[in-house]
Amino acid sequence: MLEIGQKYAHSFSYTQEQVDEFARVTGDNNPVHLDEEFASKSIFKRRIAHGMLGASILSKVFGTLFPGNGTIYLNQTLNFLRPMYVEEVYEAVFEVKELISDKNRAIISTTITNSEGKSVLSGEATIMNIEAIH
Amino acid sequence: MLEIGQKYAHSFSYTQEQVDEFARVTGDNNPVHLDEEFASKSIFKRRIAHGMLGASILSKVFGTLFPGNGTIYLNQTLNFLRPMYVEEVYEAVFEVKELISDKNRAIISTTITNSEGKSVLSGEATIMNIEAIH
Repeated sequence: MLEIGQKYAHSFSYTQEQVDEFARVTGDNNPVHLDEEFASKSIFKRRIAHGMLGASILSKVFGTLFPGNGTIYLNQTLNFLRPMYVEEVYEAVFEVKELISDKNRAIISTTITNSEGKSVLSGEATIMNIEAIH
Repeated sequence: MLEIGQKYAHSFSYTQEQVDEFARVTGDNNPVHLDEEFASKSIFKRRIAHGMLGASILSKVFGTLFPGNGTIYLNQTLNFLRPMYVEEVYEAVFEVKELISDKNRAIISTTITNSEGKSVLSGEATIMNIEAIH
């Protein structure tokens, strides 16, 4: 059962192989993610992970960990604040902000921070889960 | 050069192999995407694609097609209105709503519709592109 104020944190990192594979499966082969020389001339100076790959960690957590099985994703806002790089450790932090009990819904803030504690992604999700939210 | 009111449309579909691969690379192995028997007992009745896989088409278009190279993703809102299924054709439609010329930014509405013309995803993006937006 989710409760207002409840938090959940999940650490993760990505490899360049995962970025390459994400590019292949989604078709998002923007060279800033794949081509080191191209990326070195961009404002990022080196290759960055796809924002949507970072965002996918939110979906993974909701669907498999917190609250887990049976979660239906209704809404997500994503503010891409800073680039995400491979081989760095990030932490996704979730906090239950609001419960809409009669609809089995929760509004949950979603933040990803880097190892310096700076936010790389912020946003808010609305999810539904009949077993975990009522 | 993007102009207010400009539209762009991109048709696409996904295979179950892509859904399986997306699950593997993102770690989002929620059984509603992978396990036909589990999914048949869900409200969706059959396996659905990850919402973030659908959302990734937006990132693909921005980064590679419209406006393309050099695009930086700043913000995306995602309303998951209906499930997306494999082997069905969807259309992602983009419309330039606002230009913030001095910051090389554009606000673009993003909608994905199914073959019946019903919206499966709606939202809005803010992107930056120094060459395409000024």
